[in-house]
Amino acid sequence: MKSPVAAIVMGSVSDADKMRPAEEMLGRMGIGVITSVISAHRQPDKLRDFVLSAPQRQIEVIIAGAGKAAHLPGVIASLTILPVIGVPLSSDGLGGIDSLLSIAQMPTGIPVATVAIDGAANAGLLAATILALKYEEVEKKLKEYREELARG
Amino acid sequence: MKSPVAAIVMGSVSDADKMRPAEEMLGRMGIGVITSVISAHRQPDKLRDFVLSAPQRQIEVIIAGAGKAAHLPGVIASLTILPVIGVPLSSDGLGGIDSLLSIAQMPTGIPVATVAIDGAANAGLLAATILALKYEEVEKKLKEYREELARG
Amino acid sequence: MKSPVAAIVMGSVSDADKMRPAEEMLGRMGIGVITSVISAHRQPDKLRDFVLSAPQRQIEVIIAGAGKAAHLPGVIASLTILPVIGVPLSSDGLGGIDSLLSIAQMPTGIPVATVAIDGAANAGLLAATILALKYEEVEKKLKEYREELARG
Amino acid sequence: MKSPVAAIVMGSVSDADKMRPAEEMLGRMGIGVITSVISAHRQPDKLRDFVLSAPQRQIEVIIAGAGKAAHLPGVIASLTILPVIGVPLSSDGLGGIDSLLSIAQMPTGIPVATVAIDGAANAGLLAATILALKYEEVEKKLKEYREELARG
Amino acid sequence: MKSPVAAIVMGSVSDADKMRPAEEMLGRMGIGVITSVISAHRQPDKLRDFVLSAPQRQIEVIIAGAGKAAHLPGVIASLTILPVIGVPLSSDGLGGIDSLLSIAQMPTGIPVATVAIDGAANAGLLAATILALKYEEVEKKLKEYREELARG
Amino acid sequence: MKSPVAAIVMGSVSDADKMRPAEEMLGRMGIGVITSVISAHRQPDKLRDFVLSAPQRQIEVIIAGAGKAAHLPGVIASLTILPVIGVPLSSDGLGGIDSLLSIAQMPTGIPVATVAIDGAANAGLLAATILALKYEEVEKKLKEYREELARG
Amino acid sequence: MKSPVAAIVMGSVSDADKMRPAEEMLGRMGIGVITSVISAHRQPDKLRDFVLSAPQRQIEVIIAGAGKAAHLPGVIASLTILPVIGVPLSSDGLGGIDSLLSIAQMPTGIPVATVAIDGAANAGLLAATILALKYEEVEKKLKEYREELARG
Amino acid sequence: MKSPVAAIVMGSVSDADKMRPAEEMLGRMGIGVITSVISAHRQPDKLRDFVLSAPQRQIEVIIAGAGKAAHLPGVIASLTILPVIGVPLSSDGLGGIDSLLSIAQMPTGIPVATVAIDGAANAGLLAATILALKYEEVEKKLKEYREELARG
Repeated sequence: MKSPVAAIVMGSVSDADKMRPAEEMLGRMGIGVITSVISAHRQPDKLRDFVLSAPQRQIEVIIAGAGKAAHLPGVIASLTILPVIGVPLSSDGLGGIDSLLSIAQMPTGIPVATVAIDGAANAGLLAATILALKYEEVEKKLKEYREELARG
Repeated sequence: MKSPVAAIVMGSVSDADKMRPAEEMLGRMGIGVITSVISAHRQPDKLRDFVLSAPQRQIEVIIAGAGKAAHLPGVIASLTILPVIGVPLSSDGLGGIDSLLSIAQMPTGIPVATVAIDGAANAGLLAATILALKYEEVEKKLKEYREELARG
Repeated sequence: MKSPVAAIVMGSVSDADKMRPAEEMLGRMGIGVITSVISAHRQPDKLRDFVLSAPQRQIEVIIAGAGKAAHLPGVIASLTILPVIGVPLSSDGLGGIDSLLSIAQMPTGIPVATVAIDGAANAGLLAATILALKYEEVEKKLKEYREELARG
Repeated sequence: MKSPVAAIVMGSVSDADKMRPAEEMLGRMGIGVITSVISAHRQPDKLRDFVLSAPQRQIEVIIAGAGKAAHLPGVIASLTILPVIGVPLSSDGLGGIDSLLSIAQMPTGIPVATVAIDGAANAGLLAATILALKYEEVEKKLKEYREELARG
Repeated sequence: MKSPVAAIVMGSVSDADKMRPAEEMLGRMGIGVITSVISAHRQPDKLRDFVLSAPQRQIEVIIAGAGKAAHLPGVIASLTILPVIGVPLSSDGLGGIDSLLSIAQMPTGIPVATVAIDGAANAGLLAATILALKYEEVEKKLKEYREELARG
Repeated sequence: MKSPVAAIVMGSVSDADKMRPAEEMLGRMGIGVITSVISAHRQPDKLRDFVLSAPQRQIEVIIAGAGKAAHLPGVIASLTILPVIGVPLSSDGLGGIDSLLSIAQMPTGIPVATVAIDGAANAGLLAATILALKYEEVEKKLKEYREELARG
Repeated sequence: MKSPVAAIVMGSVSDADKMRPAEEMLGRMGIGVITSVISAHRQPDKLRDFVLSAPQRQIEVIIAGAGKAAHLPGVIASLTILPVIGVPLSSDGLGGIDSLLSIAQMPTGIPVATVAIDGAANAGLLAATILALKYEEVEKKLKEYREELARG
Repeated sequence: MKSPVAAIVMGSVSDADKMRPAEEMLGRMGIGVITSVISAHRQPDKLRDFVLSAPQRQIEVIIAGAGKAAHLPGVIASLTILPVIGVPLSSDGLGGIDSLLSIAQMPTGIPVATVAIDGAANAGLLAATILALKYEEVEKKLKEYREELARG
């Protein structure tokens, strides 16, 4: 019996701290995590190989965090029909409005599921809501998490 | 054997034209659609009843379109663990940046999958990427759609 | 004889420092204060119960502070006909423009009285201007406060 | 027995169409309306006289609509302890973000209750929520209005 | 023979550091300075008296610095035909875009000469360019200053 | 006896309609007007010659209108110690926020007196407030204008 | 002897009108033009093939126009060391600020030369300034064009 | 045989740290660098002389960094047909959106190649992509650099 797996991709090791909450949330939801650092712009071939091989690696959802021009989630989405969740990362100055727009404003045909600026934890949760449709164990953990939230 | 169903909710009948592409895309992907007009602010009880009864109605993904303060997707997400896709709708003046921020900037714990401003077609496609994980028929149609896009 | 009471609601204990000036101002204006931490998204049922029971608790004005998507004041307003005052709270990055838009841009039918970003003290004062219409003691304190301001 | 009265002030006759919904809503709520066109900048003395004489005219709430630099609500608030509701009016180009910021970002001490851009109807409703605390007839009409909204 | 005098007004003592460069520049240009702290909103009567008495005090240009809603320069301009220079002051969060819009977007009839955010030194220089039309000594100092700038 | 003269410069004949109110206002204030179309970027030499020869032509104030990158007022100010008034002109899309920032955010040393987006009439009035310090006839007309405004 | 060639790429035929000025300007500068419609997101393989084959086709500069998320120029730049010029295209609502940020805010390592929103003519000219370094004929035409501009 | 040379210009010594990555990148690409500090506004004559003499100094590309109103790149471009690369520099408050708009939104006829806010390294790289068309040594170094990036 298959178990749920999600990938986390970021463009630079300097994004690791901001993306860690996605890893932690996926772990908490009982979802396996494959984390990679691949730049859409500096390593287009490596990214392409990674995305095209995702299905063989049982990856069902891809979370991509990126700052500034933040093309990473959109480029990934152009190469797969798996759900892609984009996390706009803030940087000095514009506070992430650039990455929010670059990720959210995708053209018709290739959607990216955008979460809040620096919202990596919610990216993990969104992956869980998606995988919960298929994996009862994830659904159970998600319900427990929500009940815990409701208790405050 | 279950067939895939998604719900579309909008706050006002005046949003119907902007949300129609979501309906059409879901139809094209072989996903059943239940469309409702319910305001998060004017009809909180009706919205609550709708969301809480979604699982019995086989709804697996909820698409919500809203303009301006655009609380609809977030309020729906607060009441369910189903994946919620938010479509920021533009209005005069601010061009939809208000609804984009109101939908995307959700707090930790309750994610909304935000698409582009007036991106209803992509909301339908995003629902398809999610349901394609579970329904082979949807996956097949999604692949065909993407191949068609690639042919230009 | 009834005495004036206002409620302060915030979504997270981390908002307490920013909302304290509302408490202090209400106290200075001789208005009783009931402060609660309830998240609109994580605790929708608790929030609902709180708002629906507000009239029995003699609450006449509700002040709600929230950051980012900042749905709290609007969700409260959807559940009551009491005046609701929204305080947009700033967060890193966007400086509160997200919460200002999310609170101010309410749809027709359900208004929220929005004050400045991080303007909790003014939320308390606005509550006082409202309650001063009914409670002479509040009117007196408000006049004294304004005279003090005028002296510089 | 006193009956409720609200004032509507706008800076220019060209704002009349955008402010009419406030008049209509106040009328529907059984609140008397005194509408004036006075510019904060071009007619500071006339505005001052108007605001200082408001209490004698039984005015209990003042609604002020203004575009661009939009000082009108704030200048009124500086001259009275009555609740002042500000309606940011949109104009070409910036879509009203200038007037929203100019009205909402008031300094500590002098609050203005800001509603949505071009949200004159909600300004009328907000006045009704305030006056409903004191006038049972207004409360009754407000409840009926909300029930009507809830029916959709 | 008359000597040139400019006034500097700010709404709060907390603005003093940001406005000091205006004082210094006026001093360097040989222009007398009268600095006052008067809030447009908290002290409307005091401000009115100050502005109306400016001509008797030989004041020919008024520089006003203000943050957030920043009505001070516009309110001063509504009370005088002297040239009024507005300095938008930054505050946390929005970085001064609110005060820039509130000062620059004045309605037809009552202009304010707006300088850069936190541009107090340039406000002093702008006053000098104005007074240089009338006072040769100021013109001389201004030319010297510009030559010094040109030398780098 | 000298009579007051102001120059109006714009970068393109397509700006003429938006700048006409400046001409009209200057005329109304009894100020002579010299209007020129010179692009800062396409005709730097012509602009330079124009600005350097302004004093010989009795020009005492220069009004410059520009859209988008809107360097015209700043480039003029770099070449003269006369007061320069900048009028940000709106264009499609950004509504003039680009030209407002490009004109207002001048560096220390070289101020530009910025008015509202498309605020050409106020640019003319601002020139009048400046010239009224020196020309009694302008002061008289300015007072009359303001009294007319005050009458509404 | 080689003659200069530039490519123009756009994501959709609906962008053709906005990109035509680039074609015309390149033609005027004596630069050969190869125009293609290829979507970065819908046709990633076709785009890849096009970019990788550009050198064989003698293309020396690539101009790419895109709206909204506007990844096209950046994705092209990730696949080539030729200079890539990005033209942010406006769309309803946000006026092109989304595409401007998505194109300009590229990460270190992969630059895109960004021109103004809807600045296709300038993209053609920028290509000409680049090719003028190598092709005397282009330099000559560019000088003539600039002289023509200077004549006004 | 000529060797490639690029100029770096900035308006103030305080910009030196932000512009250093451009110097370093040009050095790494084997391009000679001439760095100058010249203000467009405070030193228009010096700037003019510098730009007009650039061809004699073998300069083929000019990189200009500027903050706030950021006219420097555009003013340089108005004086030369060499390619001009503009680097918007961030400053407190607006985070560089002012300089980005001031540099990117150039009028038709005079383009500036704009890179990211604080993107000096990419300005150096963009110069290298331009000079690589003409200088094989630069092309070789650029390819090596990109291969290094691709290795991660």
